[in-house]
Order: sequence, then structure tokens, then C-alpha cells
Amino acid sequence: MEKLKKTLEMIKPANSNTVEEAQKHLDNLTKPPGSLGVLEDIAKKIAGITGEVKPPLPKKTCILLAGDHGVTDEGVSAFPKEVTPQMVLNFLNGGAAMSVLSRHVGAELIVVDIGVAADLSDHPLLVKKKVAYGTANMAKGPAMNRDQAVQAIEAGIEVAEKCLQSGTGIFGTGEMGIGNTTPSTAITAFYRGSGVAEVCGRGTGVDDQNLKLKVRVIEKAIELNNPDRDDALDVLSKIGGYEIAGMAGVMLAAAANRKPVLIDGFISGAAALVASKLQPLAVDYMLASHLSEEPGHAAALDLLGLQPYLRMNMRLGEGTGAALAMSIVDGALKIVHEMASFADAGVSNKD
Amino acid sequence: MEKLKKTLEMIKPANSNTVEEAQKHLDNLTKPPGSLGVLEDIAKKIAGITGEVKPPLPKKTCILLAGDHGVTDEGVSAFPKEVTPQMVLNFLNGGAAMSVLSRHVGAELIVVDIGVAADLSDHPLLVKKKVAYGTANMAKGPAMNRDQAVQAIEAGIEVAEKCLQSGTGIFGTGEMGIGNTTPSTAITAFYRGSGVAEVCGRGTGVDDQNLKLKVRVIEKAIELNNPDRDDALDVLSKIGGYEIAGMAGVMLAAAANRKPVLIDGFISGAAALVASKLQPLAVDYMLASHLSEEPGHAAALDLLGLQPYLRMNMRLGEGTGAALAMSIVDGALKIVHEMASFADAGVSNKD
Repeated sequence: MEKLKKTLEMIKPANSNTVEEAQKHLDNLTKPPGSLGVLEDIAKKIAGITGEVKPPLPKKTCILLAGDHGVTDEGVSAFPKEVTPQMVLNFLNGGAAMSVLSRHVGAELIVVDIGVAADLSDHPLLVKKKVAYGTANMAKGPAMNRDQAVQAIEAGIEVAEKCLQSGTGIFGTGEMGIGNTTPSTAITAFYRGSGVAEVCGRGTGVDDQNLKLKVRVIEKAIELNNPDRDDALDVLSKIGGYEIAGMAGVMLAAAANRKPVLIDGFISGAAALVASKLQPLAVDYMLASHLSEEPGHAAALDLLGLQPYLRMNMRLGEGTGAALAMSIVDGALKIVHEMASFADAGVSNKD
Repeated sequence: MEKLKKTLEMIKPANSNTVEEAQKHLDNLTKPPGSLGVLEDIAKKIAGITGEVKPPLPKKTCILLAGDHGVTDEGVSAFPKEVTPQMVLNFLNGGAAMSVLSRHVGAELIVVDIGVAADLSDHPLLVKKKVAYGTANMAKGPAMNRDQAVQAIEAGIEVAEKCLQSGTGIFGTGEMGIGNTTPSTAITAFYRGSGVAEVCGRGTGVDDQNLKLKVRVIEKAIELNNPDRDDALDVLSKIGGYEIAGMAGVMLAAAANRKPVLIDGFISGAAALVASKLQPLAVDYMLASHLSEEPGHAAALDLLGLQPYLRMNMRLGEGTGAALAMSIVDGALKIVHEMASFADAGVSNKD
């Protein structure tokens, strides 16, 4: 709890002065004001985060947290639970979509076992931070106890801090965990105060019948556990998951250390909601990479007040949207560094 | 006219067999079917275009065509006409947004003077294909004569063919031309058969009063010139522009040679409309990179039946959206090449 408390205390608002300076700089570049849209928004947001109008191009790190979910016993997922450890190996061997896209954008990919329900062999790219062998079935009781939830958040913070020591300048958040759209839907529906069906999607692809089942299981989990709306740790521990907790930890560590962090899809959005409830200022440090096909993602981003950049109809998770958006962020920073001003280029400005 | 005719005759439909094979290949990769959304759509479309399920990563070339517009005499633009040649120099010197973003994605940038109303000095990166010193004022008569329109399309084809000889595997289309949202709006409104005001935007940033003026000027140009809906060359020559014609030429050459071509923003969308009227099959070879803030762009893409990938609120043109999307296309192709299958990775498939 000490590490989490300290991290939350370190989070301060973004720097509004450097945002203004960045705006002035952008308006001097050879283009109509604002015409680069989101690229300009990103450049300004990162100026506020880092306190620098022209921050160096950041070292990019994607942290992928893997965990299992006891609630899969209820039949809420289209894929069997064994897929979680199998996919961890796939990430480590470089064959998963997230492996490919991290390489594509030049990002380091760090894979963390935070709660996989299997023993994983040692691997130079695997960080072992297992809190438990998956969560308990939230349809029958709390997914985690409070200590486990804190331990998982702090594991995320520790992994992020280690990356910061090696020079990471921007984080992407990703996850793997069969069944994890179920707790993410529970968290999103709970904070939204809406019906579960409105924000519940098909995850990896359940059919109509299992979609109805999934909705009922989530409704039951919320009712049974009755989380305290004013206590994010209570919500997270009762209806969350280890990788969700760990992702929230990464986001809080990024905010505490004034580094941008890219939200990925729906699971990442649910983790961002938890992080924002622990410290609302953390949202200042978050960038929404893409809009997932999972219906709950738009709801989560809406609650966070974040606009997604890419609309690619993706719904894979893993951090794939965050990875793709890292290239967009680099593009935005290069605009700041490399574009000529009206004066330098001898271009006439608007009348 | 011979080159245009030959190019149009070379355009054949995309290969539906390789699209199907690509679908099968994608469904075998370690992810839920379809979960990579647009990345999978791109991979399939390019399989159909190239006739290869696993085409090599293409050499990327952005062709930026610059031209001026007599209609700026009517006061339809927020920036003075001198900016066109000034910006050409900025592109050549590497200081424009398009210069920065082309470098960012590893694309070659080729700048073509196809109708700039000024003499430009020689430069190793400048291709000289000037048809005239800007179009005539379309509010007072046709912007070009038919021969000039054909010459400009063929100039675009020639530039693209030269790129193909040097190994270009994917094209981006970009432009520079103060005033060029005016002919683009005219073309889009004309083909859509709607009121001009519905698709007319602020371009580089005209105020409310000049926006009204711009609408009236375009209405007048369409009425006065009365183009023949069934004759794309008539439409293009009367209410188009040199860079629009040249971009259409690049698109047709890409289609004729089975290479993908990325549509950029509004001007590029208007050029794509013209190309599609000359040969509807050309649309098979077009990918829509982003959705511009210019209201007419959505209308043009809708007429073409194309879905844009990025929604970045950009409205700069130059090819900036196409350049950004090139990195997304590379990502999609790497997914096809580098992802492991369920069998290879030992991952259990859906029940």
C-alpha cells in the first residue's frame, strides 16, 4: 500500500504553460492553424505532460499484463482458459499480433505474468509478478481480496518504474486474459450506472446465447458483491482482475513520472477508469489510441473524457491499438521538431 | 489521349481468389477471426490488388502535385496565391508537414509542378510537368480546355509510371494549390447532385462571409459551365484543376499496374471521383487513408464506397493523411507475414 500511496501523491496536473507555448509554436508552422487536428492535440498534450514544448522522441515501451479469470467457469468466453498461457508463449516467441505491431513501431514489448492460472517457464522477456493463479469467480464472491488488488497495482507500478530507469518515455498498455472483457464490462457498467447489456460485447466472439449468459453473470456479480462506488479498490478487487489492476498501476506510475501512457482497448479503458477513480489527475497523462469494436470501450472513454485517434474496428486487445498509435505520436512530435515556420520558409501567412 | 486510353484499358478487377485465400490465412492466425478489423480489411484488399496473399512490403512513394487556380481571383481562399510556389520550395527543402510525415513513414516524396502560376527553379526533387500557369477562373468560363485536362492526367500517369520503374509498390496522393478546395467542392457537389453549401467547407480557413461567397462562386461556376455528367473529362476540364487531374492520373496508373493507391483528403477524394468516372474499376485499387474535416470529403468517399481508416480531424491536405496511413498499411502486411498460426504456436482455437 505504501508504494501505491506514494505514487498517487506524486501525480500533479499537467503543465498548462507548456501547452500554451506548444500552441504558439504550432501556429507558427507552415500550415493553416489547427489543420493537423489530432497531431496538434497530441503534441500539445505531451507538452503539458512532459513540461517541454519540444520533448525528445521517447523510447517506447508496451507493457502487456496477463492474468486469468475464475468467472470463465460460467462459460462467458468463446476461447478456453488454456489460451492465456499459450498466448503468453506466443508473445514471448514474437508470433502474436502485439509482437508484430510492437516491432513495427519500434516499441519494446514487456510481458508480465501477474495472475496466469498456470506455471510459466522462465524466459528472458517474461517478468514474473504473479499475485495468484487467476482471480476467484466473481459470480460467486469477490474476484480478489483488497490486499491482492493492491499488490497487483503495485506490481504494475514496479514494472513501469523499472522501464523508466531504462529510459522509457512513453508507455503502451496491453493485456491477455481469457474472460477479461467480463470484469471490464462489470467495471464500466458499474461506474456508468447503466444496464450491463448496453455495454456488454462479444469479447473474443461469444454467440447470441452466451452473450445473454454473459450479461446475466455480470449483473449477478455486481449485485452479489455490491461494490462501494466511492472506493475504487473495493470495485477493482470485487469485480476486476489482476491484469486490470496491473494496467492501472502502469498508468498511475506514468502519471506520477510525467510520461504519456496510451490506453488501448476495452480492458485498458476499464483499467483507466479505475486509475482515474484512484487519482482523477491521472487522466491528464492518458492518450486514447483507438476506438474498439467492444461497445463498452466508447462508454469508458466517454467517462474518462478522452477522444480516441484511430477507428480501425479492432477488438483484439493485447495493446495492439496502443502500439499502432505510438507511430502517430512519433509523427506528432516530429511535426513539432522538424516543420519549418512561416518566417524560416519564407511562406506568406494568412491575410 | 493515347496514354490515357491505354491506361484505362489496362485496368481489370481485383483478384477475388487471392482475397479469399487471404481471408483463410488471416483466420488461421492467433487471434479471434476478424478481431484486427481494418488491418485485416487492408491485407485482404491488397491481396486482391496485387494477386498475392503475402506481397512483399512495398516501396512507398507519395506524389504531390501542385497547381494554381484562377478562381482565387474571386476571393475564395484565406491564403494568397503566392503560397503555392512558396510551399513547393518548402516541400523541396523538407520543412512542410508532408515532408516530415513522408520521412516518418519511410516514403519517398516526389513533388510535381503541374500547373503552378509561377516559374520554379530547377531542383533535383522537382518534376516539371507544367501544363499551364494555373487554371482559368471557372466562375467566368471553363477552368481548362479538354486537351489541357487530358495532358494533366497523362502527366500524372507518366510520373507514376516512372515511379513504378524504380520499384514503387504503393502510392500516396497529395497536392498543393491555394484555392483547390473550390474546384474539389464543385466536382463533389456536382456528382452528388446536392446543394453546394452542404459539401462546402472553410478550406485553409475562410471566415463566415467568405464561406458564403465561396458557395456562390461554386454555384455560379457549375451553372455557367454546365458540365456533362456522363463525360468525366468535361467535368474535370470545366470545374477541376491541374493537380486534381494529375492525381486522377496517378490513381489510374496505380490501378492499371495493380498497385494500391492511398486517397488522402478532400482534393484527393475529388480526384478519385473523377478517376472512378473514367473507369469505375479503379476504385478496387484505392484505399481511403483518413476522414478529413472538410465536409465534402465524407460525401466523396461515400460516393466512392470507401471507408476511411483514420479520423484525426486533419484538413491540411498535401498527402499528410495518406502518408500516416502508409504506416498502417505496412502494419497490416506485417501481420500477414509475421503472425504465428494457431497450429504453429500451439494455441487452442475457439471451441
